[in-house]
Amino acid sequence: LESQYSLNEKWIKVRKEKVKLPSGKILNDFYVVEGNDLVAVLAIDKGCVLLVRQYRHAVKDVTLDIPGGGVNPKETPINAARRELLEETGFTAGSMEKLAIYYPDSGRTESTKHIYLASQLTRYQPLCASEDDAEEVELVRLPINKLINKIKTGHGIEPTLCLAMLFLFLKKYNSDWELFANPLKSNQ
Amino acid sequence: LESQYSLNEKWIKVRKEKVKLPSGKILNDFYVVEGNDLVAVLAIDKGCVLLVRQYRHAVKDVTLDIPGGGVNPKETPINAARRELLEETGFTAGSMEKLAIYYPDSGRTESTKHIYLASQLTRYQPLCASEDDAEEVELVRLPINKLINKIKTGHGIEPTLCLAMLFLFLKKYNSDWELFANPLKSNQ
Repeated sequence: LESQYSLNEKWIKVRKEKVKLPSGKILNDFYVVEGNDLVAVLAIDKGCVLLVRQYRHAVKDVTLDIPGGGVNPKETPINAARRELLEETGFTAGSMEKLAIYYPDSGRTESTKHIYLASQLTRYQPLCASEDDAEEVELVRLPINKLINKIKTGHGIEPTLCLAMLFLFLKKYNSDWELFANPLKSNQ
Repeated sequence: LESQYSLNEKWIKVRKEKVKLPSGKILNDFYVVEGNDLVAVLAIDKGCVLLVRQYRHAVKDVTLDIPGGGVNPKETPINAARRELLEETGFTAGSMEKLAIYYPDSGRTESTKHIYLASQLTRYQPLCASEDDAEEVELVRLPINKLINKIKTGHGIEPTLCLAMLFLFLKKYNSDWELFANPLKSNQ
């Protein structure tokens, strides 16, 4: 019904809205944190997943995630995924398939997140420092079975990485659930 | 190094911080969206998962999730989980186990999210309207196998629900992967 910016900075924009819900109820102060759409890439190279380990200041901790970032204006999600994969890992992908699409924070943010599965990887360039000031990223390669074990027991595993692995198995590896159930056994 | 509020309202608080990263690099304008810790509850009653369907204004869509919400000041996460389960479904749980803990949005928010597995459910009260103005919640019961199929193919499935199901199978149902792989077959 009404909308105005409560905060409008380069890195964050917050809108305050007056909203009429489907039931007819009126909310006077609903805040929406604006955000571009997001992408993330589950890239598998010779049985290993390419991961990024980085310090996240908001939680003052180091976390493990798949590569990803924001979709730029006029960029398609799949092109953003290719760009982020290259920037963060130095790899290009011969095949990119949509794996999942969801709202990462539907209670507060309008963004949609797209997860792609990247395969047929080629090392395109040595990994160089990201241009994004806030990102200091370390590349980590983990075999799928070790990664699953880490998800089961580890700390600081990002939800996007977990979701990517769930959808990988739901959509691609239906016949190989034993790996998920007993990751260490299959490593022997 | 420095911290000040850029936005300080009842429903949303945003801090602007000057930050020194582990590498020594200084960021002058890192924004943190403040938030309480969050809880969500995977509640299973007679083979069915208790779900909430609600309109989410930020994405202007209806989504399916497990019950959950914020941890109040001085409340423990497990008590918040019990309270949210009761408020949103009318059920109490004889057993509550920690299923997962993660940072839902480590790039921007300091919150931690706790997912609990609730079982031995008892209907405590008829579901009544939530006191939270922004929530208009419809309770949905789905058998586990139908839910997995919905996650595979559905729209508007919240990531918290997907993560809860992943950790349920990783931690509890290791021997029953066939259900995940072929949800509809096991429904016959």
